[in-house]
Amino acid sequence: MIIQLEPNITQQQQELLQEKLQEIKYKVTAVDTQYGHYLIGVGKAEFDIRGIGTLPGIKDIHRVSDAYKLVSKKWRVDNTVVDLGDDLHIGDGSLAMMVGPCSIESEEQIAKTIAHMQEHGIRIMRGGVYKPRSSPYSFRGLGIDGLKMWHEQTRAAGIKIITEVMMTEQIEAMVDYVDIFQVGARNSQNFNLLDALGEVDKPVLLKRGISGTMDELLASAEYIFSNGNERIMLCERGIRSYEKAYRNTFDINAVVMLKEKTHLPVIADPSHGIGVRQYVDKIALASAVAGADGIIMEVHHEPEKAFSDGQQTLSFREAERLYGKLKQLEAIR
Amino acid sequence: MIIQLEPNITQQQQELLQEKLQEIKYKVTAVDTQYGHYLIGVGKAEFDIRGIGTLPGIKDIHRVSDAYKLVSKKWRVDNTVVDLGDDLHIGDGSLAMMVGPCSIESEEQIAKTIAHMQEHGIRIMRGGVYKPRSSPYSFRGLGIDGLKMWHEQTRAAGIKIITEVMMTEQIEAMVDYVDIFQVGARNSQNFNLLDALGEVDKPVLLKRGISGTMDELLASAEYIFSNGNERIMLCERGIRSYEKAYRNTFDINAVVMLKEKTHLPVIADPSHGIGVRQYVDKIALASAVAGADGIIMEVHHEPEKAFSDGQQTLSFREAERLYGKLKQLEAIR
Amino acid sequence: MIIQLEPNITQQQQELLQEKLQEIKYKVTAVDTQYGHYLIGVGKAEFDIRGIGTLPGIKDIHRVSDAYKLVSKKWRVDNTVVDLGDDLHIGDGSLAMMVGPCSIESEEQIAKTIAHMQEHGIRIMRGGVYKPRSSPYSFRGLGIDGLKMWHEQTRAAGIKIITEVMMTEQIEAMVDYVDIFQVGARNSQNFNLLDALGEVDKPVLLKRGISGTMDELLASAEYIFSNGNERIMLCERGIRSYEKAYRNTFDINAVVMLKEKTHLPVIADPSHGIGVRQYVDKIALASAVAGADGIIMEVHHEPEKAFSDGQQTLSFREAERLYGKLKQLEAIR
Amino acid sequence: MIIQLEPNITQQQQELLQEKLQEIKYKVTAVDTQYGHYLIGVGKAEFDIRGIGTLPGIKDIHRVSDAYKLVSKKWRVDNTVVDLGDDLHIGDGSLAMMVGPCSIESEEQIAKTIAHMQEHGIRIMRGGVYKPRSSPYSFRGLGIDGLKMWHEQTRAAGIKIITEVMMTEQIEAMVDYVDIFQVGARNSQNFNLLDALGEVDKPVLLKRGISGTMDELLASAEYIFSNGNERIMLCERGIRSYEKAYRNTFDINAVVMLKEKTHLPVIADPSHGIGVRQYVDKIALASAVAGADGIIMEVHHEPEKAFSDGQQTLSFREAERLYGKLKQLEAIR
Repeated sequence: MIIQLEPNITQQQQELLQEKLQEIKYKVTAVDTQYGHYLIGVGKAEFDIRGIGTLPGIKDIHRVSDAYKLVSKKWRVDNTVVDLGDDLHIGDGSLAMMVGPCSIESEEQIAKTIAHMQEHGIRIMRGGVYKPRSSPYSFRGLGIDGLKMWHEQTRAAGIKIITEVMMTEQIEAMVDYVDIFQVGARNSQNFNLLDALGEVDKPVLLKRGISGTMDELLASAEYIFSNGNERIMLCERGIRSYEKAYRNTFDINAVVMLKEKTHLPVIADPSHGIGVRQYVDKIALASAVAGADGIIMEVHHEPEKAFSDGQQTLSFREAERLYGKLKQLEAIR
Repeated sequence: MIIQLEPNITQQQQELLQEKLQEIKYKVTAVDTQYGHYLIGVGKAEFDIRGIGTLPGIKDIHRVSDAYKLVSKKWRVDNTVVDLGDDLHIGDGSLAMMVGPCSIESEEQIAKTIAHMQEHGIRIMRGGVYKPRSSPYSFRGLGIDGLKMWHEQTRAAGIKIITEVMMTEQIEAMVDYVDIFQVGARNSQNFNLLDALGEVDKPVLLKRGISGTMDELLASAEYIFSNGNERIMLCERGIRSYEKAYRNTFDINAVVMLKEKTHLPVIADPSHGIGVRQYVDKIALASAVAGADGIIMEVHHEPEKAFSDGQQTLSFREAERLYGKLKQLEAIR
Repeated sequence: MIIQLEPNITQQQQELLQEKLQEIKYKVTAVDTQYGHYLIGVGKAEFDIRGIGTLPGIKDIHRVSDAYKLVSKKWRVDNTVVDLGDDLHIGDGSLAMMVGPCSIESEEQIAKTIAHMQEHGIRIMRGGVYKPRSSPYSFRGLGIDGLKMWHEQTRAAGIKIITEVMMTEQIEAMVDYVDIFQVGARNSQNFNLLDALGEVDKPVLLKRGISGTMDELLASAEYIFSNGNERIMLCERGIRSYEKAYRNTFDINAVVMLKEKTHLPVIADPSHGIGVRQYVDKIALASAVAGADGIIMEVHHEPEKAFSDGQQTLSFREAERLYGKLKQLEAIR
Repeated sequence: MIIQLEPNITQQQQELLQEKLQEIKYKVTAVDTQYGHYLIGVGKAEFDIRGIGTLPGIKDIHRVSDAYKLVSKKWRVDNTVVDLGDDLHIGDGSLAMMVGPCSIESEEQIAKTIAHMQEHGIRIMRGGVYKPRSSPYSFRGLGIDGLKMWHEQTRAAGIKIITEVMMTEQIEAMVDYVDIFQVGARNSQNFNLLDALGEVDKPVLLKRGISGTMDELLASAEYIFSNGNERIMLCERGIRSYEKAYRNTFDINAVVMLKEKTHLPVIADPSHGIGVRQYVDKIALASAVAGADGIIMEVHHEPEKAFSDGQQTLSFREAERLYGKLKQLEAIR
């Protein structure tokens, strides 16, 4: 159960409400976000929803049968629009584009990417400065200094940054240079990190776990929301299956179904979703018609020379051909 | 290695060729289809392809490194167009539609479906008369009598029939009433059935196994082709994964990649691919932009009352909304 | 619901019973096997089980909530013991051993295998004469002539044959030379083949599908039983998962759970279950303590030279070391 | 490549060595642990191993073709024995037992568990004080105060504690009260946490990811080792598959193969590995004969009343029956 509280609810009214919920043995969690005040009640008893809903200080009350509550579309039927400032919105019906390299490498690389983006009107740049790598002997990214360098160049160009955060301790140093925090697939159930991102007033893009279910993804989003941050996007990036002919199995079903399960924007990552450069474009197009609110995609001025794994990275030229088709689909979908 | 033979190659020329291949220890299989004569050579030795290619009686020779040969795009780069007669083709760049119920139930049901199809210019009707069912106590279809009844109605209407064949012994009785034989997911590696369908001069739609790889699907298609039948279509119908929120995981990656691995048409089955009625339309749209040559889909005049499983079956009204959007995408993809 | 009928139930009594079941709208299937007469009722209505159970001609009546009925342990709590004749039983608490090559190759190979078996008191020989192969260009086995040759040698030695049948048409020619028909993983849901094997009075070993669930395996066994053949064994042979470091994921959980779900014997196939020769022994040992009624395993006098895939085949020497340990575990488990 | 350094290698000798490795373009990482000094070289060039191995200050040099190096059995063929103090060792050929509740709940619960353990000579107690939970509204454990209370009771009884750590920030507060840090399946690729545990001089039990490959597990262990901590145990706890009849698919293959891939002890978790109470015992027995160095298992004095999920927790009585059988197998395996 979700109870939306009036902003001016009194202490006394709150206590009365908590009492009522304890009577029916509901476990209550108070949630305060940028945008609202909520009480989440979890319990099993049948009760008269109107009896509670008409108490003073209450704006609205909703039954939510899902295991996740605040991120469910069962109570908030209108889609959440994430406001990135500067008149940039995700989830408003348009198709948001986030492009850039796997890893931030150099000033030159950033400059070239920005030029490419500006040419095509793309305003959000992706890139890693903290890279989760299977092997401890692999390059792990340029770190906070790389982020600062990157930020300096994007700020001048009016471009937003989305980049991965891997641990709670990194948040404070990163927060001023980041527009969207990305949680990677391997950290999709790193609950302490999710808690911490709930306390930050920056949007979060949460990737589905390597073999995460949709319900687990939504439960992880609930961690962020219930800690105070409503500005969340979900990202389908392919799941692990038995098929070995590509890197991941892009779950187009999830793109479609998440849009019905949650009010949060859903972003598709075709680069990881198939993991083979020559096929990325088709997965991006399919995602657009399936209802994705945005595409996050790897592009590089010289994919063959990219740090880490360039096998799924489009060249600028390949990307350009795709942008045109995406625009066309965006218009008619 | 695939060697295309001239139609008028002499016995003596053939023997010379076989000798040459035995010299390099290649195992040779002769393949005669509706459209050509081939020798398939499987071996490991390096050899001078021109030395063989210039022998008399040979039209062309191709190295094919894939485990499958005749169905590979490595030797036949142009897409195969399956001719169904009456100016109906699959694989020519258009989007073929195959719709109808899960199971054929009654004359009335057939009549209503035909009327619906005619209204929308759809010319191929799907439906089961032999149904593979997990439980031996479930309805297994109307059988050959149902097929004859069905055929009588479709013939009058100029509509083609696609239906599943489950065993070799059924082929002979069915062949006159069927336009496309369908091999179901559970029989995707029933090699004796595939052999037998290779000897029939009717097109075959081969479904991917429940957890079949793309390479296994192509190897199964190779069975049909190498037994003499080139008119094959492949069908992606969702794979088995860990996710339980839907029935199957529609593998959009496979739609994209199969189009590059093989010259055969690729058909998408969004009904089984997600298995939840309200989401079928989006998967159909995504398949269309991903490059599918056709859509096979369950529709029913009263889905709630359908035999077997109506949970993934669209009503006529739902289907109609989809047809329009598919037409739009077909035009611009 | 399963109703066990008295052998001497009269026609009239049967009709009365059918009537009663139709009254409560149960769909009834009559099953006659080597060992008994049953009516299977499938329906939803609540009913008084005693009201039916006390009718004349009825031996016993059981509610069975599983989707499968006759193979369920819910009605037959004692384990089924499959009698192979000559005082050889499977499912009686001992550990049955079935060993032999992947494919039957030659008289010499058979002779050597028999000598090895006799040395160790093993009485069931496995081997393929019809081989399901992914590629149509691979060796498909020696066929019926190979089977006859094989049978001649084993008969003289008092050894039983288990071998795979791939299609209904093969049964008649094979039946006199086979002691156990094996259904391979790819045919685990080839329902027509299962139907046909239900009409044969030879035991059947049914392998789990490549990604079959336990419930699907049991439903497939129900096909055989409900067509008249109670002598069924189930075989766990590894499932398909995302892990690529071995061939299949041996599902030890299934060995344990199948023993609780069904009264049928459960056989473990460690050779395919892990698919890597050096690890087969450990999987066999684990299966024995997990409760398996038998082990089916590939051995060969020269594994490196074996037809098809020798990668999972033990040499006689490797097998010998294992037999001793298995005996030890059999004694204490 | 792994180069083991002499303890008294000089600065100058080290520099010479680094130079040599740079010449062949190997990327070098210096690793200092409790037990040794190593240089890890990663590169592609062929080189004369003796030319480096005979340099002064070098104890030994090993080529290791695996992606993981220090945890590989390719260079250290003897099994690592983890010393827990008080004459308690894991990996020495015996079967270590770790039992206890899912969550630490109360003094009474701890006391009862300790009494049970002492009766059976079990010296390592498992239990959670930080619990990773899918939902933010679930109980997350008693935290550091619970750990202190628990430690007070176990210390008096001479019992060791294994418990999960979820984030780097928790380590410092926990370290004095913990004998083995456990990394849960969801944190199996939380590389920052692994780094931090590499700097702690307490043994670590690392669980395989929910759908982690063996190679990923070993790469994660490499993080810990290469940060300075050699005292690592790996834990197989079941993987995610398509089968829904149990909670996880216990990967017995992995138990067998990990013992050949690494010198580290391998622990089996049958509780999570099958997730159904009545079947846990058989999985424990199978693991013992498959070669596991230990069993970690949930037991509770009142499983039905346990916090969180008691469905996989054995009662003391059930556990006792199992201990006896495990002892018997330990003696003969």
